[in-house]
Amino acid sequence: MLTNEKKLFIGCESDFESASAVIFGAPFDSTTSFRPGTRFGSSAIRSESFGIETYSPYQDKDLTDYNIFDAGDPELCFGSPEKALEDIEAIATEILAADKTPVMLGGEHLVTLGAVRAVKKKYDELYIVQFDAHADLREDYLGQQLSHACVMRRCHQLVGDGHIHQFGIRSGERTEFEFAAEHTVMHKYTIGAELGDHIDDTVKALSGKNVYITVDLDVIDPSEFPGTGTPEAGGAKFRELLSALMKLCGGELNIVGMDINELSPHYDPSGRSTALACKLLREMLLMTAK
Amino acid sequence: MLTNEKKLFIGCESDFESASAVIFGAPFDSTTSFRPGTRFGSSAIRSESFGIETYSPYQDKDLTDYNIFDAGDPELCFGSPEKALEDIEAIATEILAADKTPVMLGGEHLVTLGAVRAVKKKYDELYIVQFDAHADLREDYLGQQLSHACVMRRCHQLVGDGHIHQFGIRSGERTEFEFAAEHTVMHKYTIGAELGDHIDDTVKALSGKNVYITVDLDVIDPSEFPGTGTPEAGGAKFRELLSALMKLCGGELNIVGMDINELSPHYDPSGRSTALACKLLREMLLMTAK
Amino acid sequence: MLTNEKKLFIGCESDFESASAVIFGAPFDSTTSFRPGTRFGSSAIRSESFGIETYSPYQDKDLTDYNIFDAGDPELCFGSPEKALEDIEAIATEILAADKTPVMLGGEHLVTLGAVRAVKKKYDELYIVQFDAHADLREDYLGQQLSHACVMRRCHQLVGDGHIHQFGIRSGERTEFEFAAEHTVMHKYTIGAELGDHIDDTVKALSGKNVYITVDLDVIDPSEFPGTGTPEAGGAKFRELLSALMKLCGGELNIVGMDINELSPHYDPSGRSTALACKLLREMLLMTAK
Amino acid sequence: MLTNEKKLFIGCESDFESASAVIFGAPFDSTTSFRPGTRFGSSAIRSESFGIETYSPYQDKDLTDYNIFDAGDPELCFGSPEKALEDIEAIATEILAADKTPVMLGGEHLVTLGAVRAVKKKYDELYIVQFDAHADLREDYLGQQLSHACVMRRCHQLVGDGHIHQFGIRSGERTEFEFAAEHTVMHKYTIGAELGDHIDDTVKALSGKNVYITVDLDVIDPSEFPGTGTPEAGGAKFRELLSALMKLCGGELNIVGMDINELSPHYDPSGRSTALACKLLREMLLMTAK
Amino acid sequence: MLTNEKKLFIGCESDFESASAVIFGAPFDSTTSFRPGTRFGSSAIRSESFGIETYSPYQDKDLTDYNIFDAGDPELCFGSPEKALEDIEAIATEILAADKTPVMLGGEHLVTLGAVRAVKKKYDELYIVQFDAHADLREDYLGQQLSHACVMRRCHQLVGDGHIHQFGIRSGERTEFEFAAEHTVMHKYTIGAELGDHIDDTVKALSGKNVYITVDLDVIDPSEFPGTGTPEAGGAKFRELLSALMKLCGGELNIVGMDINELSPHYDPSGRSTALACKLLREMLLMTAK
Amino acid sequence: MLTNEKKLFIGCESDFESASAVIFGAPFDSTTSFRPGTRFGSSAIRSESFGIETYSPYQDKDLTDYNIFDAGDPELCFGSPEKALEDIEAIATEILAADKTPVMLGGEHLVTLGAVRAVKKKYDELYIVQFDAHADLREDYLGQQLSHACVMRRCHQLVGDGHIHQFGIRSGERTEFEFAAEHTVMHKYTIGAELGDHIDDTVKALSGKNVYITVDLDVIDPSEFPGTGTPEAGGAKFRELLSALMKLCGGELNIVGMDINELSPHYDPSGRSTALACKLLREMLLMTAK
Repeated sequence: MLTNEKKLFIGCESDFESASAVIFGAPFDSTTSFRPGTRFGSSAIRSESFGIETYSPYQDKDLTDYNIFDAGDPELCFGSPEKALEDIEAIATEILAADKTPVMLGGEHLVTLGAVRAVKKKYDELYIVQFDAHADLREDYLGQQLSHACVMRRCHQLVGDGHIHQFGIRSGERTEFEFAAEHTVMHKYTIGAELGDHIDDTVKALSGKNVYITVDLDVIDPSEFPGTGTPEAGGAKFRELLSALMKLCGGELNIVGMDINELSPHYDPSGRSTALACKLLREMLLMTAK
Repeated sequence: MLTNEKKLFIGCESDFESASAVIFGAPFDSTTSFRPGTRFGSSAIRSESFGIETYSPYQDKDLTDYNIFDAGDPELCFGSPEKALEDIEAIATEILAADKTPVMLGGEHLVTLGAVRAVKKKYDELYIVQFDAHADLREDYLGQQLSHACVMRRCHQLVGDGHIHQFGIRSGERTEFEFAAEHTVMHKYTIGAELGDHIDDTVKALSGKNVYITVDLDVIDPSEFPGTGTPEAGGAKFRELLSALMKLCGGELNIVGMDINELSPHYDPSGRSTALACKLLREMLLMTAK
Repeated sequence: MLTNEKKLFIGCESDFESASAVIFGAPFDSTTSFRPGTRFGSSAIRSESFGIETYSPYQDKDLTDYNIFDAGDPELCFGSPEKALEDIEAIATEILAADKTPVMLGGEHLVTLGAVRAVKKKYDELYIVQFDAHADLREDYLGQQLSHACVMRRCHQLVGDGHIHQFGIRSGERTEFEFAAEHTVMHKYTIGAELGDHIDDTVKALSGKNVYITVDLDVIDPSEFPGTGTPEAGGAKFRELLSALMKLCGGELNIVGMDINELSPHYDPSGRSTALACKLLREMLLMTAK
Repeated sequence: MLTNEKKLFIGCESDFESASAVIFGAPFDSTTSFRPGTRFGSSAIRSESFGIETYSPYQDKDLTDYNIFDAGDPELCFGSPEKALEDIEAIATEILAADKTPVMLGGEHLVTLGAVRAVKKKYDELYIVQFDAHADLREDYLGQQLSHACVMRRCHQLVGDGHIHQFGIRSGERTEFEFAAEHTVMHKYTIGAELGDHIDDTVKALSGKNVYITVDLDVIDPSEFPGTGTPEAGGAKFRELLSALMKLCGGELNIVGMDINELSPHYDPSGRSTALACKLLREMLLMTAK
Repeated sequence: MLTNEKKLFIGCESDFESASAVIFGAPFDSTTSFRPGTRFGSSAIRSESFGIETYSPYQDKDLTDYNIFDAGDPELCFGSPEKALEDIEAIATEILAADKTPVMLGGEHLVTLGAVRAVKKKYDELYIVQFDAHADLREDYLGQQLSHACVMRRCHQLVGDGHIHQFGIRSGERTEFEFAAEHTVMHKYTIGAELGDHIDDTVKALSGKNVYITVDLDVIDPSEFPGTGTPEAGGAKFRELLSALMKLCGGELNIVGMDINELSPHYDPSGRSTALACKLLREMLLMTAK
Repeated sequence: MLTNEKKLFIGCESDFESASAVIFGAPFDSTTSFRPGTRFGSSAIRSESFGIETYSPYQDKDLTDYNIFDAGDPELCFGSPEKALEDIEAIATEILAADKTPVMLGGEHLVTLGAVRAVKKKYDELYIVQFDAHADLREDYLGQQLSHACVMRRCHQLVGDGHIHQFGIRSGERTEFEFAAEHTVMHKYTIGAELGDHIDDTVKALSGKNVYITVDLDVIDPSEFPGTGTPEAGGAKFRELLSALMKLCGGELNIVGMDINELSPHYDPSGRSTALACKLLREMLLMTAK
């Protein structure tokens, strides 16, 4: 009776060696310019995961049938983005070296850069599929290049033209949209758009390629996901996102890593944002589980 | 000027004798495993009902044209589910004995069992239509059989195979879905489903039958109804639910009782969950008013 | 470095003389019968506007390309609706006298009456397009004629039969709907309706006319806009509203003034209601900018 | 079992005729200049009173041993202070005519004026003892004379020089303190002061006189009573206030009416402000019960 | 880097065998009659403990110098107080059998009964020192004998007359105070009292005796500790409580077990209640550490 | 009527040239390790200052009788402490160069270092008086030397041994207290201590010296000031702090700059923390106004 239990994501109680996927947190939000709090995201996801089941009626699969390891949260240095990114890169590298899939829980969106650096070292040809309300393509933000608002611009420097597919975008500066027109594959989410409008094209284009998926949860409409720092009206539904991800993870692409980020649990007293993130994580784990 | 007023649901100021329907609360949440608070549901509905009108533009009917009695909240024993269920059964029995329709306001979903017991005593052949995010079909929960997570399993023991129609279900353990496949009529609410997809079939199947309707408000998407303990993303809209209920209550079925439950008002500082529950109650009362 | 900055809506830093549109607040909520707080609306919109961009991907326009003046908030007398309306009328009159478009930020919906009075003095033939969950057509409320619940009834006295087009209405007393049937052009928003269902008719009918647009933000579903005093389930989406407004402001009508009101920021800890209002204001300014 | 119960303050279930004291609410806050919400005060006190006992260990008395009638809340006209005050005066007059003690629950502090008008009509020589953080002695506020910030100035016009004793004052404009120096008996609550410092003097001075007690709950330090619109640091403890009131109500003065006001329950999610108000009301009722 | 960490109270990372004290949670609140939520108490204390230091400047001691084991939270059955108490008793018994001190974190106050049953089995002569706002001496509550409101009455049945010393009591029914006068040693905390007034007497009386300490955190004033279900104004300061506990744990008494309970973290958005509980637990561990 | 107003601290409407003191914000919190949010502190203080008066009954002085300039908030770079500190230093230097007193509003405590650097450049011999719950004397925090937890250690490097007087300290690591014993003048605030215990000694010791005052608002007990990231139970009262500051600013010391920091307004829905900070700022401005 008296053994103190670890706090893991529900159903992810494998050990490292036998796991095919490894969850880890990236509790960092120091460059957040507006309202901080995503540092609490990964921890909230774990705690609240006990409010959901391990079974998915969407996919008729159960987490308990797979081997997934939850590595917990590293202690990242607040106030130094570069140092934090190095630590994240090191963790992802260790996971990739053991031929497992890294699944990162942010934190602010900047943390994606750390994981992408690690993945790019392993896979020379790398594509990124981004779900996001914001383009995140600024050259710098108040002089800072390592900012959440610049993360996809930094990733573009790593993976190159045409290697980033962007879905759900409905906010940004004019210059970001101009950059996207030349360098990325962007699908705006303005009036009348559906998140899945061009997913089939992307699946076809990236068939057989190495793909990293990054989900900034604010791609979802703030009505369904209020727990985030910069809510953007007019977003996608959870069901749209789920549907799009199912197509991406249907087997044609080689998913080499993924993350979900920008959950800021304190802004949502109903707790449904965290619950949604838990459910999304379960579904993404089940989609890609081997 | 100086007469202290009772706190009733707006427009429900009939006396017991002349009433055709009787509202009562079931403020109980002791078996809630995750986040308690539904004990405050019925009381919040009454207080906030003064923010809505008695008139429905959806149905062009007005509560003030009907006789409905609001019996207030009994004091239920926290810590003893069996005793609480007995008290609920007694109240519903008294209402049914006077040939009135019981309309119960939860409380956690377990309270439905108390009302169903009473209705089953009066109507030997009884069907239940359940709107819910969760199957609630577990055999037990942590060893407890009288738990909100088991309430439809207990009801099944009373009404038998094929007598429970379930709508909106999008969460549960694998075994619950397996049980449903054999013993209930379940309509899952996964990607692409609409709440009303099979309502016409149900109306046809239950035509002329005695039907009890139970609405676990978490069937609605947490974006529209965040005030509940276990928010499940990917749910139905209020307008979908209203439309489905209108078909059910269109006259072909014999509605012998109903309840709405699982409002936990404190999780929603905007108050819109309580306001929605008030509006839903008004509409359900008007749908079935005689 | 040391100049104390004014707190303006983002991108609206013109001076009065060169401006084509003038924003001003109407922080008043004394007649609010249910839950007050809209007095904080205009101030919250300004503060939070720094969380959005000046650029609209919906319209491919940027606020920094236009001249808009933000006149801040006047100090309105709480406890005297008549005095407050006089002050609002005076401000709108001053703006109109300089041939600029007044853009008012409420406050409760009653403030619309002050602006409409000013606009009506300048434009003898005046139409109003109202987006709202509530009809606001009561003759009086608890004996008070200057109440938010009566504002469109008061406006009707000014502009006359058939001059008010109402969209999104899903709440009111029976007598309000009866009044509307005779005196206004009302489009109810019941099950199955879309906000834009009759917008084309309105655009055609009002082509070339002087039109004042008033947006009670509770026209939007409480899931997307919880920050308001009387949330009404079953409302419109932000994207529906945006689409309808784009048609209205497409050039055929002569938009002579507009307002957005009933944001009560404290009821929404996620801040998304205020963020939505900021975004809507940006879009409306860009739609009508000259 | 099926009788809908009235919502009364705990233990105050007498009928009007046999009661020696009569509680009534004054849910009005239209002149509140900063943060509204006291309109919810009286209703919150009743609901939450079921969290306390009827017995006072401070006085060894029990509410169930006395006859007190709770008359509920009248519907006061928002947006018209004069009309609201007339209604309050009418209620208090009716209570006084039956030789009972009126006990009013605000609402904002302005409501005291309505009750004092009634009391003054019955008792020609009338003293007021005020507990408050603010002097409330302004001649007008933004041109409005019927404002919460002016209420004691208006009372002074009724009762005259030297007839208002003020305790706990720690905020106001310079002119208010100058007015107090000439026309009232004011005890400031600055560093080192205790609320009871001059209570004995007041008891002696008012011995045998008719006294109305008004408690603006913000006299208590915001740490113990955060649920109010204008929290003023450096206030009194609950125990200090209780002690002072016990001396005032010890039998030497003729207490002819009293009120407690300025509870704004929504600003305090812990609920302790409402709980404190409940407890204070119980104690004040027991102190003066006959 | 990749080892998932356990979530323990800061500085309590010993293993069971070498520990002298063992922390465990009792996350149960099913009999809570008013506002539930203490089930989240123990978990919140662990999570937030990383915001405090292991070092106490009050005692000049450091947790890292001692061996303490944190056994985490058992899963207790909601809806069955008797079953939950049995599980608690079993855990405490296991700890006591290994000659370690059990330190329990509630949960509602009823959980104390489970621990006291275990302690009483080991120590025939047992005294209890209770810090609490409420007497908790009811014979039953709504017919239920196993209720938080009756816990000390149940304990009295175990330990007998004169074996319970009560401090800080300022609330209860008349009958509870009458019971205390005959059967316990009660120190009321009314106006003018200090928590430590009779601590020296208690230390002297219990010198050399086996003593269980139970701290219902609502003994502290709600201003310092708002995160609890039944806030009682007029309570003790944290510093008073700390001082009293230091005297009790100064070496003369044989402290055989202790608990702190009734933290309901969700009622306090500032988080200071949880932080206070963390700090108190650190101090109590350091006071009794061997 | 139509002039957009600046948002300044109430009563501080001087221009820069004629001002004797200059307020500026330092909205930075990137190194906050626990719960961020102090970036909103300075802005909240300005907005809420309109809820207090310009007159102090404590000092019988009025802000409108003095010339104070409020320079607003600079845009500081999140994610780069060094860059932010440089900007702060530049602002303070500009104010000092014009022979005015800088009054900084944090932000996290680290910002003090920027101001102290500027002051030290002007005044070779500089003393610091710190009010704080935490020692803030760590050599580094997670490897970072520019952290809020290290700010006084960094200041010590500038001003040297015996030049920092610390009041209210009740938390820290053992090594911090050991450092203090050798290098600073620390007054712990443990049981029984009063904040002013050694103020007279400090006034005497620093008579005629150049003194910078830094107030970490968490020195105040969390009951009075809950709006901060790391609440520490057992703190000082507002009245204690006011009294101590009055002695320090009584004329004997040469106050060359000051700051108040660590207000995190979102953690306190009652708003009393911000209101307290406003009041404290008014008092400190009046204490030192020339």
